[in-house]
Amino acid sequence: MTVNKPVFILVRPQMGENIGAAARAMANFGLRELRIVAPRDGWPNEAATANASGAFEEMDEVKVYGTLAAASADLNYLFATTARERVMAKPVFTPAAAIEETLKKSGQKIGFVFGPERTGLENDEIVLCQGVVTIPTSPVFASLNLAQTALLIAYEYIRAANNRPAHVPAQDTPATQDKLDEMFTRLQSELEAHQFFKTEELKPTMLRNIRTMFMRGEWSEQEVRTFHGILSALTGKK
Amino acid sequence: MTVNKPVFILVRPQMGENIGAAARAMANFGLRELRIVAPRDGWPNEAATANASGAFEEMDEVKVYGTLAAASADLNYLFATTARERVMAKPVFTPAAAIEETLKKSGQKIGFVFGPERTGLENDEIVLCQGVVTIPTSPVFASLNLAQTALLIAYEYIRAANNRPAHVPAQDTPATQDKLDEMFTRLQSELEAHQFFKTEELKPTMLRNIRTMFMRGEWSEQEVRTFHGILSALTGKK
Repeated sequence: MTVNKPVFILVRPQMGENIGAAARAMANFGLRELRIVAPRDGWPNEAATANASGAFEEMDEVKVYGTLAAASADLNYLFATTARERVMAKPVFTPAAAIEETLKKSGQKIGFVFGPERTGLENDEIVLCQGVVTIPTSPVFASLNLAQTALLIAYEYIRAANNRPAHVPAQDTPATQDKLDEMFTRLQSELEAHQFFKTEELKPTMLRNIRTMFMRGEWSEQEVRTFHGILSALTGKK
Repeated sequence: MTVNKPVFILVRPQMGENIGAAARAMANFGLRELRIVAPRDGWPNEAATANASGAFEEMDEVKVYGTLAAASADLNYLFATTARERVMAKPVFTPAAAIEETLKKSGQKIGFVFGPERTGLENDEIVLCQGVVTIPTSPVFASLNLAQTALLIAYEYIRAANNRPAHVPAQDTPATQDKLDEMFTRLQSELEAHQFFKTEELKPTMLRNIRTMFMRGEWSEQEVRTFHGILSALTGKK
């Protein structure tokens, strides 16, 4: 029986040691697919290999990308890991709930996105993610590092995979991130062409809010095509 | 409501750094009571303090003992953490089951016992423990260190103590049905005016699908207003 294994995506990691430790955490709990976006010290990385203690040999080949959008183009659902809740209307999951969701979405490819050590993910990166995962650390002491966060998510995976509930079969093919991105890019340019944005200043926030409200519906490929049809009709391009 | 917080006991730890990291893991998840048996480098330990990043300040004072028996004299139940099952007639728990047991035994003092980095607990020490906890690592790759093991146990504690489902941060008033209906009615008439529907026959199904895909996002009042703005812009009614 196959259980839906999530992909881990490290965005702009700084220390090779942390990449190695994250790989170790994945291999400890049977995860295989690691992607890296713009690693500070390039790739391959000696410190990563040394600190992985052989973990990479138990995994698929690591893939490296320039942007989170490129790294997630073929994925259906992304969880952003964040140290605290941000003010965005996205569902916030515990690690347990996020993994439960992952196993429920069998047939879909799910990614967990981890930000750089010091700064975490930027808002423009979180916007690309459908859900947010926050680890419930103590309000008076929260010092989880990248590798510890990866360890806890990987652990939740094995914890649930060893004991998983019935899953809901996917009906329609869910849209991949690249199709969603294409859709938003088109919506944005139509809105610009129609003077939707009152000021340039407010535009980034408005775009973020619009993307967020549309992403919550987790549209299928067919639904994305329908929305393209709606845009074509409304703008007279039919 | 008080939740039964376990005590962590590090037996003959070698590296101060690992003591500090274990303390951090405890403080991250609200645990307060750390005991140390015969630390190799004595106590206090500078490397432990440095690596704790202030965790000790969120905890009770660390107590140091000569033997595990002395360190556990006032406790009611001990879990030995071990990398693999040993041949002893003791119940073996997952971390989750051990914490469930801990919370069930309210009014009792429960300890989790961690062995030295390289060798783990000796059989004479495991004998003092009523239960054994083993973390379900991959059979082909198991490299958890002391601090990671402590992190996973502490995490299981907070996970169980603080079990909560995913939630969307409350921001905005959710739209009421009448506002949604008004929005769909307007979308429908705009689509009709723009010849979106190829045939009258297919129209009811298409409308149903469109309504469904938009409703899944559970939009707020503000988001419904944003969509009205998008419609106005795209149809040149601005």
